[in-house]
Amino acid sequence: MKLPLGFRSAGVAAGIKASGKLDLGLLTSDEPLVWAMTSTENLLKAPCVTRNRARHAGDHPVRALVVNAGNANCANGETGVWNNEDFAGLAAAALGLPRVQEVLTASTGVIGKPLPMAELRAGVPLAVAALQSEHADDFAGAILTTDLVRKQVELTLPGGARVIGIAKGSGMIHPNMATMFAFVLTDAIVEQRSLRRLWREVVARTLNQVTVDGDTSTNDMAFVFASQRLRVDDGDLRYALDTVAEGLSRQVAADGEGATTLITVSVSGGRNPDEARRAARSVACSNLVKAAVHGRDPNWGRILSAVGTSGAIADLDGVTVRLQGFDVFRGTSRAFDEPAVAAAMHAPEVLIEIDLAAGEAEASAWGCDLTADYVRINAEYRT
Amino acid sequence: MKLPLGFRSAGVAAGIKASGKLDLGLLTSDEPLVWAMTSTENLLKAPCVTRNRARHAGDHPVRALVVNAGNANCANGETGVWNNEDFAGLAAAALGLPRVQEVLTASTGVIGKPLPMAELRAGVPLAVAALQSEHADDFAGAILTTDLVRKQVELTLPGGARVIGIAKGSGMIHPNMATMFAFVLTDAIVEQRSLRRLWREVVARTLNQVTVDGDTSTNDMAFVFASQRLRVDDGDLRYALDTVAEGLSRQVAADGEGATTLITVSVSGGRNPDEARRAARSVACSNLVKAAVHGRDPNWGRILSAVGTSGAIADLDGVTVRLQGFDVFRGTSRAFDEPAVAAAMHAPEVLIEIDLAAGEAEASAWGCDLTADYVRINAEYRT
Repeated sequence: MKLPLGFRSAGVAAGIKASGKLDLGLLTSDEPLVWAMTSTENLLKAPCVTRNRARHAGDHPVRALVVNAGNANCANGETGVWNNEDFAGLAAAALGLPRVQEVLTASTGVIGKPLPMAELRAGVPLAVAALQSEHADDFAGAILTTDLVRKQVELTLPGGARVIGIAKGSGMIHPNMATMFAFVLTDAIVEQRSLRRLWREVVARTLNQVTVDGDTSTNDMAFVFASQRLRVDDGDLRYALDTVAEGLSRQVAADGEGATTLITVSVSGGRNPDEARRAARSVACSNLVKAAVHGRDPNWGRILSAVGTSGAIADLDGVTVRLQGFDVFRGTSRAFDEPAVAAAMHAPEVLIEIDLAAGEAEASAWGCDLTADYVRINAEYRT
Repeated sequence: MKLPLGFRSAGVAAGIKASGKLDLGLLTSDEPLVWAMTSTENLLKAPCVTRNRARHAGDHPVRALVVNAGNANCANGETGVWNNEDFAGLAAAALGLPRVQEVLTASTGVIGKPLPMAELRAGVPLAVAALQSEHADDFAGAILTTDLVRKQVELTLPGGARVIGIAKGSGMIHPNMATMFAFVLTDAIVEQRSLRRLWREVVARTLNQVTVDGDTSTNDMAFVFASQRLRVDDGDLRYALDTVAEGLSRQVAADGEGATTLITVSVSGGRNPDEARRAARSVACSNLVKAAVHGRDPNWGRILSAVGTSGAIADLDGVTVRLQGFDVFRGTSRAFDEPAVAAAMHAPEVLIEIDLAAGEAEASAWGCDLTADYVRINAEYRT
C-alpha cells in the first residue's frame, strides 16, 4: 500500500519474535507531523501508552513512531518505564533527531517480560536504514502478533490527498498480546486542534465499537498522523477518516480469535449517540449472541436481552429486530420463516439491525462469532 | 431439604416442559410473610418481575409465590402482562386467598412464547393439592430449566430457627432460559424494613457477584421470605443469610453452562466495597481468564488486565496475585514454578486471590471456566 506524501516507513526482523518474522516498525516524516491519538481506558497502561499520552496532552508535533511486536513491555515496573524511554532514544539517535520527545513508541506482545534491549539496539538502526517512501507493507507486517491477516485500508480524496490505515489486533484484547493498534496516515493539511476533535469523534464511532471479547487492553492505541502537504475540504477529510477507520474496524473484528463470521450490529432510533453505541456494543459483545450467530440460530431473544442489558430501552413498543434483512421481531414476538433466516445467516458477514424507536441516533458495532476455536486458542496459548 | 416452620411447598408436572418433568412450583404460608426481593437490572423485564417489583415497592406482606419453568413469559406484549396476572389469580383462587396481590409470580424458560394458560389452569389446583410442610424438594425441582443439578443450602441458627436456600440458573443469563432464581426461606422473626436492608446487602455481596457470561437476564429474581416463628439474633441472621446466599452463588456458578471448574475470585485491599466487587466480577467474567483456567494456564497477565478494565487500580505498586495459593505476581512480574501452579489448577475449584493494596475493602465473585461445550450448548440450543 502506497504511503501518502511526506512519510517514510520500514519494517524489519529484529529477533524479538522467536519466529524470525518482521517485528520492528518505524514511521517517520521529515517535517513535524500533526497528530492525534486515542488510547486504552484500561487503568493498567503500558509505559508506551502513558508516555504517548503525556506527549498528546500538549500540542507538540512529532516526527517518528517506533513500534515493536512480540513484547508489550507492560507490568515491568520502573525497568519497563526506562526501557520504553530508551526505545524512543534509540530511534531518535539513529534518526539524528535532537529531541527524543518527538518520537512516539508502541509495544505489543507478551505482558511481564522485559523489553529485549539488545535486539532493539541492533534493530533500530536497521529499520532506519530500511526507510523508504513508497509503501507501508513492511511496517504493516511488523506490527502483527497472532493476526492471521494484515489490516489495511486506503482512500484518495478529491484533490489527490490520500488517507491510509493500518491496524493490528485479533481480539480487542488478545491473550497477553493484548493490543489493537491503528495507524492512519494522511498527507492532508489539517490543524492539530481540528484533527484531535475529529479523531476523537471518528474513533468513538468506529474503532471503539469493535469488540471481540468485551475487554480493553493495556496497550491499545489509535493514531492519526497528517503530513500537511495537500489541501482538503473538511467534510471530505472527515468522511475519509471515518471510512478508513470503519474499514479497519471491520477487518479487526473479522480476524477475531477463532472467528468464522463478521457480525455487524446496526442500531437506529436511539435517544442519543451514546446510548445507540452502547446498545450496538452490548449486542456485538454478548457471548450468547456470538454463539447463536455461530450456530446460525435466528435467536432474537438473546439480541433483545443484550439491548436491555445496555440500558438503551425501557420497553419494547416499536422496537424491531432484523436479521440479514428479515424482520424477526416487531414490538412482540412474531412468526417468521426460521429456516430461511438461518439459511441467510450462512454468510461471512451477519447483519443485525435494531430500531430502538426512541429517537434519531444511530450507531454500529463490529464483532465476530464465538467458536470452540476461541476457547482452544485462549486455553492453550501459553502451553 | 426440610422446610422452615410456617411454610408449605409443592412441585408438580403441569405439561409446560415437553419433557414431562416438574415445571410448576408453589410456596405458601398460612400467616403473612415478611419478604424482600432483588431483581434484574436489565431494562427489559418480564411481567412477573415488574409485578413483583410493584408489590415490593410497598411494605405489603405476601402469602404465596407460584413459579413455572419452561416459559419465561417475556416479550409477549400486553398478552404477557395479563397472562401473568391470571397466573397469580389462578393461585389465589385455588388457595382461597381473597387478595390476588398477596401472590407473587415467577416464570423462567423460553422468551417470546405465550404462557400456556390451559396447562396452568389445570396445574395450579394440582400444586395446591400437593402442598406439604415437610420438604422443599419438589419445589426445587420444578424451578429448573437446563440446570444439571438442584441448588440447595440449609443452615440452623442458635435457638433452632432455620434458613434454607433454593436456586436455579445455569448461566447468569441462560440462552432464552434467561434466569437465575433464588428463594431463601426462614422461620426467623424479622421486621420487613430490616429484612429488606439486609437482603440488599447480602445479594450485593453474593448473588450479584455470580457471573457466567456477564449478562443479566430479563427474569432474574432473588427472594427471602420470613415466616415469623422463632426469635434470632440480628448478627446470626445476617450470617445465615450471607452463608446460604453464598452457597447458592457457588452452586450456580459451578453449574454454569459447559463448566468444568468453579472459579472463586477473592479481592482484598480495595478502596471501597463497590470497587472491590467490580474488580472481582471483572476477573470472574473475563473470557480470557475463564479460558486460561480451563487450560490450567497460570496467566496472571489476563487477571491483571481484567482488574485494570474494572477501574479498581491505577498502578501496580503493592498489587499481588495468588493462584491456588501460589504468589504469581507482586507489583511486577516474578519467577514462579509454572508447572507446579498449573498442576494445582487441576482441581474442581480454582481460587484467584488479588490484593489491590489500596484500602481495606474485600469482595468475592464466582464464575466458571469457558469451554468448547459452552459454545456448543449456545450455538446449538434452538436447532
